[in-house]
Amino acid sequence: MSDDWTTERMRRIFDEVKNWGRWGEEDEMGALNLITGEKCAEAARTVVSGETVSCARELAVVPSPENPNPALHMMLRAGDDCLVPGVNFETTGDFVGVAFHGMATSHIDALCHVFVDGLMYNGFSKGEVKSTGARRGSIMCARDGIVSRGVLLDVPRMQGVSWLEPGTSITIEDLERTEAAQDVRVGEGDILLVGTGRDARREEYGPWSPGEVGLAGLHPECIAWLRDREVAVLGSDGVSDVLPSMGIPDWFMPIHQCALVALGVHLLDNLRLDRLAEACARSGRWAFQFTVAPLRVNMATGSPVNPIAVL
Amino acid sequence: MSDDWTTERMRRIFDEVKNWGRWGEEDEMGALNLITGEKCAEAARTVVSGETVSCARELAVVPSPENPNPALHMMLRAGDDCLVPGVNFETTGDFVGVAFHGMATSHIDALCHVFVDGLMYNGFSKGEVKSTGARRGSIMCARDGIVSRGVLLDVPRMQGVSWLEPGTSITIEDLERTEAAQDVRVGEGDILLVGTGRDARREEYGPWSPGEVGLAGLHPECIAWLRDREVAVLGSDGVSDVLPSMGIPDWFMPIHQCALVALGVHLLDNLRLDRLAEACARSGRWAFQFTVAPLRVNMATGSPVNPIAVL
Amino acid sequence: MSDDWTTERMRRIFDEVKNWGRWGEEDEMGALNLITGEKCAEAARTVVSGETVSCARELAVVPSPENPNPALHMMLRAGDDCLVPGVNFETTGDFVGVAFHGMATSHIDALCHVFVDGLMYNGFSKGEVKSTGARRGSIMCARDGIVSRGVLLDVPRMQGVSWLEPGTSITIEDLERTEAAQDVRVGEGDILLVGTGRDARREEYGPWSPGEVGLAGLHPECIAWLRDREVAVLGSDGVSDVLPSMGIPDWFMPIHQCALVALGVHLLDNLRLDRLAEACARSGRWAFQFTVAPLRVNMATGSPVNPIAVL
Amino acid sequence: MSDDWTTERMRRIFDEVKNWGRWGEEDEMGALNLITGEKCAEAARTVVSGETVSCARELAVVPSPENPNPALHMMLRAGDDCLVPGVNFETTGDFVGVAFHGMATSHIDALCHVFVDGLMYNGFSKGEVKSTGARRGSIMCARDGIVSRGVLLDVPRMQGVSWLEPGTSITIEDLERTEAAQDVRVGEGDILLVGTGRDARREEYGPWSPGEVGLAGLHPECIAWLRDREVAVLGSDGVSDVLPSMGIPDWFMPIHQCALVALGVHLLDNLRLDRLAEACARSGRWAFQFTVAPLRVNMATGSPVNPIAVL
Repeated sequence: MSDDWTTERMRRIFDEVKNWGRWGEEDEMGALNLITGEKCAEAARTVVSGETVSCARELAVVPSPENPNPALHMMLRAGDDCLVPGVNFETTGDFVGVAFHGMATSHIDALCHVFVDGLMYNGFSKGEVKSTGARRGSIMCARDGIVSRGVLLDVPRMQGVSWLEPGTSITIEDLERTEAAQDVRVGEGDILLVGTGRDARREEYGPWSPGEVGLAGLHPECIAWLRDREVAVLGSDGVSDVLPSMGIPDWFMPIHQCALVALGVHLLDNLRLDRLAEACARSGRWAFQFTVAPLRVNMATGSPVNPIAVL
Repeated sequence: MSDDWTTERMRRIFDEVKNWGRWGEEDEMGALNLITGEKCAEAARTVVSGETVSCARELAVVPSPENPNPALHMMLRAGDDCLVPGVNFETTGDFVGVAFHGMATSHIDALCHVFVDGLMYNGFSKGEVKSTGARRGSIMCARDGIVSRGVLLDVPRMQGVSWLEPGTSITIEDLERTEAAQDVRVGEGDILLVGTGRDARREEYGPWSPGEVGLAGLHPECIAWLRDREVAVLGSDGVSDVLPSMGIPDWFMPIHQCALVALGVHLLDNLRLDRLAEACARSGRWAFQFTVAPLRVNMATGSPVNPIAVL
Repeated sequence: MSDDWTTERMRRIFDEVKNWGRWGEEDEMGALNLITGEKCAEAARTVVSGETVSCARELAVVPSPENPNPALHMMLRAGDDCLVPGVNFETTGDFVGVAFHGMATSHIDALCHVFVDGLMYNGFSKGEVKSTGARRGSIMCARDGIVSRGVLLDVPRMQGVSWLEPGTSITIEDLERTEAAQDVRVGEGDILLVGTGRDARREEYGPWSPGEVGLAGLHPECIAWLRDREVAVLGSDGVSDVLPSMGIPDWFMPIHQCALVALGVHLLDNLRLDRLAEACARSGRWAFQFTVAPLRVNMATGSPVNPIAVL
Repeated sequence: MSDDWTTERMRRIFDEVKNWGRWGEEDEMGALNLITGEKCAEAARTVVSGETVSCARELAVVPSPENPNPALHMMLRAGDDCLVPGVNFETTGDFVGVAFHGMATSHIDALCHVFVDGLMYNGFSKGEVKSTGARRGSIMCARDGIVSRGVLLDVPRMQGVSWLEPGTSITIEDLERTEAAQDVRVGEGDILLVGTGRDARREEYGPWSPGEVGLAGLHPECIAWLRDREVAVLGSDGVSDVLPSMGIPDWFMPIHQCALVALGVHLLDNLRLDRLAEACARSGRWAFQFTVAPLRVNMATGSPVNPIAVL
């Protein structure tokens, strides 16, 4: 990191991009407000072939360096004992459980997932997030789904590589050169997906520890750019932040801190973007209808999701 | 029930509507095959206002007569202790777990959820569903999402009542009169949603036990109709079947047994359809783009979902 | 309830019996301090026949009026798929999960389970119990097990009935008459088990809702008696408190509030005492060695347990 | 491994030590039958000081190389929101969940945990262990607790080392020399605990992967010795077996396979024995009363436990 990136500079950026109050004192939707009905309808009109592509990874039930707290998938009743006693009805069932934050599960972060100085988006206090659930900033603001235009910027493809090395910072220039290469422009209300090639690297080397080895992500200079472009939601095959942390004191994950808290921009972490990139490349179109449907979990800090692109 | 509805008659229907082999011996998608790219693109074109409406209930964490096995939502870290040790980063997190089948959670049934005579859709053996997960017929066939035209048939509205009483059988005539009243026709590849007014009744009386008090659902005569209309997916605010069971021996839940096993039609149970009905009534349109995005849980018998209608 | 039982009177009792500071300002063991090595050794000497009797109910995985949040027991691998891939090793496994507080699971309450005016035993603040776990008053104070003399007072047997009706208050006189009938005297460091016949009643009528129908328990006048007798731990087949609550404002569960908070007496709830009563009656001895071995869960508010009496 | 240890030799040992039928065709207790009331009473008489020592590790909620599937401990209600709505009652609660088998949780293996050639102890079929629970060989045979004389053999102490290196095989000679050094003799109905110094090594180097780095355990020649001595239960700070496996084809974990299946000897895995060893050394006595109280989980393959030694 350049020495220019100080705590003070981050604080200045944080203050400058803040959307607090922009949509009212009680607002909990943040930049989702940018997805108007018109924007959503416009997104539907981008559909051409009707091909659908999931941007989620399989639920991460297998422990690995990137998955220290595996999700639970347990059968309750299988074919060996499927007969419901009393009636001649044969059925099976299972249980799914997950602590979805972290580096392995495709999930959406609610705005209450991160605080800066004890405050979340729009100035609500951390005290609103109790041991019994979040009274403010929960994922329920997205309960009716997030449907807008998605734009995938596949940075490694633009650079002619298979993946960005862990720890790589993606700059504004990288984003704009990728826009140019893909002939697309990120605009107001868009869901921006930034590909770093994480899936390709994992396929080659197996999973690694993001904390120790790192992940490619956005340089904090991109925060102002996200604000300028009026992005509604930001997603990545990583976690949008660069890891290991750039080490700016008090700004361990500047993208998380500024996007969620200052901008009110929800984050999609640990997506799988390789299949989408391939479909986009095939079709020559990098914008598409994109749907995120969080589970309606009252007072939750986010949700596991399976975001769907329709091309 | 009329005495005409015998085990033998059900068996005959089951055999007549069977889609086994129709899309190949190895097929696990069933009637999802009816949702072609073209159908999906056509569904996107139904979008006018861009209003999105969730058809899921809140995750059912509170025990009730309809929810004997409540879902788990537990905070892992709240605002009272949000500082990650070592770095000055403030974060919160939680855990979500659910045995989603039953009568309380909005979920999709995978084709392996039910067997008839030990066989699931396309003739795969119940032995394929093991204590460690389903090798065949899992929800992963819908991993790229289900996006098609949704059609809501709001039967109580057509009848001028707020809800159908528990135990009511919806007939073909009911469905077709509702089509006529709403000026819509269910067709090939559609996701059919049948409203019974369950939410309105619960709002009035509180939750009840579907097993004891009952639910309105489709009369088994509708099975052939579902096949004729080439419905891709069937959903309801109940569980599509009438409860208490009509009592045809060996056919405890004939819609579940015939839709999942014979037709290969996935089921959406315990939806919330009152908000969608209101939006449809307001807009005068009962067809819309409909997206179901199951969690990508390998070898699962279904998934909790938050289906989204876009009008 | 007599009108004599006012908030002020309860407060006076609470203050009078308080053990705060008795074993030091930092003490978190409370009345477990009364179980000295000598006491424990003496308890071992009560063993005669070597018969062991569990005082736990089966883990309550089945929903019922007394069990609105059932425990989870799920197989991970059964006989249908037991071969560990790679080696010819056949194994099975499962998962157990439980929110053990409530009215269905045999469990021990840690001292941090209840506060009065925001304080737990020994004056520690409720703020010590965080969303990430209890820093003070956790069950880890009993991590080396609780082994002492147990005394069962089988109140309905003394009264010549099969059970006490829900809502019955057990008085000091009841306790002492039972002592006399059983020729036993509760003393310093003892684990006192009070039987109310709940199991017999459940066997007769099936489970009921303790909140609505009630449970027999100790009248708050017994609190001073528990202090006089220097009881170390208190257990019951109910929850020691009378339900429905006697309705003293601010003292919803006076036994829980005074035992855990004032006395530092751990509570054992929802035990199964019928088998033990039978064994005691058979042997003519109502005192025995009693072992409670909480799971070593760091920062937990208690633990599911299977307490064992050795006669 | 010596080449003498062939599949055939293991099979011969397995057949020679088999206790099948010894306690009846329907028996599910296995060697627990050796713990008679008399034996249990005798164990109580070994108590001198009344010191209690837990032999369990803390519930392993933190991921590590030995703990790829961490246990769950989640607060349901903490001090920040402890007031039960409606009544002025302040309470906290939590949830505990664990897949207890593996290399991190102190647990007991039920006899149904392992099969040889599809059969468990006493010849019951693997088919008895269904996706819905174990019909035979479950931990419920120990529902009234296991209370007997415990004997700790601290092998590294006898050898003058802090721990045995991972992969070390403990021989009959090692066991008998330790007996001699400690002046104790393992006999009928005893619970044998074999210390390998795993805790000391972990304290020094941190946790390691037992699968990759290994664990010290009993050489398969000890199986006949366990039978000769009529051991009732076998425990270890490791998993009793040597890891990595000695590599005898079809006998991946010969101690597990012969103890559980042939002998009907329950196993206690991942105990913490360092504190007990210290207490024994201090008191000069290596035999003590030992209590294992499995949770009463119907149809379970074992249970997390906190075994308690009383000296």
